[in-house]
Amino acid sequence: MECQDYALNRTLERENLNLNPLQRGGFLPLEARKALYEFSDGYSVCDYCSGRLDQVKKPSVAGFLDDLAQFLNVDAVRTVHGAREGKFAIMHAICQPGDTILVDGNAHYTTHLAAERNQLKLVEVPTSGHPEYKVEPESYREVLNQLHDQCEEPSLLVLTHVDGDYGNLTDSQGVGKIASEYGIPLLLNCAYSMGRMPIDAKKLKADFVVGSGHKSMAASGPIGVLGLKEEWADKVFKRSSTHSVKEVEMLGCTSRGAPLATLMASFPHIMERVGKWNQEVEKTRKFVAQMEKIGGISQIGVKPTDHDLVRFETSLFHQIAEKHPRRGFFLYEELKKRNIVGIKRGQTKWFKCSVYGFNSQQVEYITRSFQEIAEKHGH
Amino acid sequence: MECQDYALNRTLERENLNLNPLQRGGFLPLEARKALYEFSDGYSVCDYCSGRLDQVKKPSVAGFLDDLAQFLNVDAVRTVHGAREGKFAIMHAICQPGDTILVDGNAHYTTHLAAERNQLKLVEVPTSGHPEYKVEPESYREVLNQLHDQCEEPSLLVLTHVDGDYGNLTDSQGVGKIASEYGIPLLLNCAYSMGRMPIDAKKLKADFVVGSGHKSMAASGPIGVLGLKEEWADKVFKRSSTHSVKEVEMLGCTSRGAPLATLMASFPHIMERVGKWNQEVEKTRKFVAQMEKIGGISQIGVKPTDHDLVRFETSLFHQIAEKHPRRGFFLYEELKKRNIVGIKRGQTKWFKCSVYGFNSQQVEYITRSFQEIAEKHGH
Repeated sequence: MECQDYALNRTLERENLNLNPLQRGGFLPLEARKALYEFSDGYSVCDYCSGRLDQVKKPSVAGFLDDLAQFLNVDAVRTVHGAREGKFAIMHAICQPGDTILVDGNAHYTTHLAAERNQLKLVEVPTSGHPEYKVEPESYREVLNQLHDQCEEPSLLVLTHVDGDYGNLTDSQGVGKIASEYGIPLLLNCAYSMGRMPIDAKKLKADFVVGSGHKSMAASGPIGVLGLKEEWADKVFKRSSTHSVKEVEMLGCTSRGAPLATLMASFPHIMERVGKWNQEVEKTRKFVAQMEKIGGISQIGVKPTDHDLVRFETSLFHQIAEKHPRRGFFLYEELKKRNIVGIKRGQTKWFKCSVYGFNSQQVEYITRSFQEIAEKHGH
Repeated sequence: MECQDYALNRTLERENLNLNPLQRGGFLPLEARKALYEFSDGYSVCDYCSGRLDQVKKPSVAGFLDDLAQFLNVDAVRTVHGAREGKFAIMHAICQPGDTILVDGNAHYTTHLAAERNQLKLVEVPTSGHPEYKVEPESYREVLNQLHDQCEEPSLLVLTHVDGDYGNLTDSQGVGKIASEYGIPLLLNCAYSMGRMPIDAKKLKADFVVGSGHKSMAASGPIGVLGLKEEWADKVFKRSSTHSVKEVEMLGCTSRGAPLATLMASFPHIMERVGKWNQEVEKTRKFVAQMEKIGGISQIGVKPTDHDLVRFETSLFHQIAEKHPRRGFFLYEELKKRNIVGIKRGQTKWFKCSVYGFNSQQVEYITRSFQEIAEKHGH
């Protein structure tokens, strides 16, 4: 048989200014590119394995996990394939099919899928709705009380630390306090925060944290992080009854290859960049202000934003699209001409974007480009 | 905090002749190295996703999966994180906690862990034991009959196509016929066969096949393959009740990054190399004959071998080790001096190795090295 041409290049996305929030935290620094080269082949991190990935000494996976646990202030940590696989493993280990869990209204779809795959009943804690979509800790208490009245006691609370729709930073401490009061563990989904901003799991009162290497930790996907408090280690890292060194929820080992090497190589870079998080937030707030100045563009979600992922409602571009011969495609095409990518083709009513990691000239160029496009079309 | 030095290099394993069977099928061809470069950043295969990884058109994941399904003669196929994750997903989708499944006595530990994580009762079909460790289809029938007498009807049969201890190629057709008779689906673990030798799932009478990209398909880990017959697609690829395009067992998407790009890039190379499988077996048989000629070395498992993974009992090297000042380490050190790696440090009683992918001069050099080491120590 003949195989098709799979178009295995990514020049456009690599060589232009990519505003896709999903991509901005996943760019590899030089050290990680070198690690990718070193560990490109097959089972490359397993040369010196004596049965446990998390205990491998060369490369020093064991040393890395110690450092990572300290960095996140968790008692134990493992790498997993991604945040979703981490959430699934935690739910699988500590919940029973039919259990109820609470998740915030901005939860990522993978939180829903992890629960569904575990046959859990998912109850949503509503947000404040348009335009802020804010998650209030007290809403958790309200839903818990309602459930209590129905004699239902959830076995887990899940909170999205920063959601992928509005970039809202939630009050984990607040939810964590309520979780403690009710004696229910809290799982904090840090896919959009771990590796971008400092995470102190104990201060955030989270029993579990999950993170995403490819989303926010400058690693090559798929790779994630699962950290927990000591009291949960026996359940989540339970050993096999037949293969006594192997951990059941990890299926023995998880990320047995290059993504792990890139996560490790990027770690010094990650430690450094989370220290500059305030500057990133400042930069984003300025960017939002500049964009809103154009007119017909307004940020949705909590204001001022506390994260680099921002969602704009863009009635301006939607109006242009209605009369433009290229309809909704005009925006994508105008941006592409200016070497800017990452906004979905055809989308003009609203979009999500991020200027995370761009320098001030780049951000200025990006805002000017949006201004130019508006002016060119008579605004 | 300061992080440790993680020793992120692999020069020794990359630049020497590596006999580790776990590594031999995972070396990347040039095209896959290029793909790794293109798709190194974060969520790199997700630029043009509209909700389903398996339907992404750029790069053409969709086209690749069509080709792969044809190549394996399955009705539908997905990429997963590895063979173990594939086995877990299949068991999770089609079995219930408490169900009994049958697995061969040479099954990989991850088959055991996938079953344990699913709370399944695992019954082993015994092998013929030392020295052949052969798996006979009729043994499945015997165990099935024994279970039937106890009113137990297994919900799945698992067969290891080629095991990782002895490199025994099993009779999947034979087990598949018995599976059909009893109306029980057969899952064939092809981690050591898919990508090395031709796989025709229908001819092999397997309802499910799983493969390993990093082990045998010249891909960067972690990545695997899950193929199945149409009749199982509804269960294993069941859609979410709340997110209708997403597949529950895949948690939406699986390998969202570079490993998938390498698997795709290596596919033409894989199609070509499985056509030369007979030559690989011939080469291995010659290698075994040369090794056995040294004396005090004998191949364990079915003879002549039908696979490149061979296990030797090496009383010769064990005897040397007993008197050698470096004890068991002498063999590793003598080989390393000759630029040969992949045999575990300290191991002399027996070892597993493979000459898969080496040319005839390299194989000759390897055998001569073992001969020299034997002679140097008075044999």
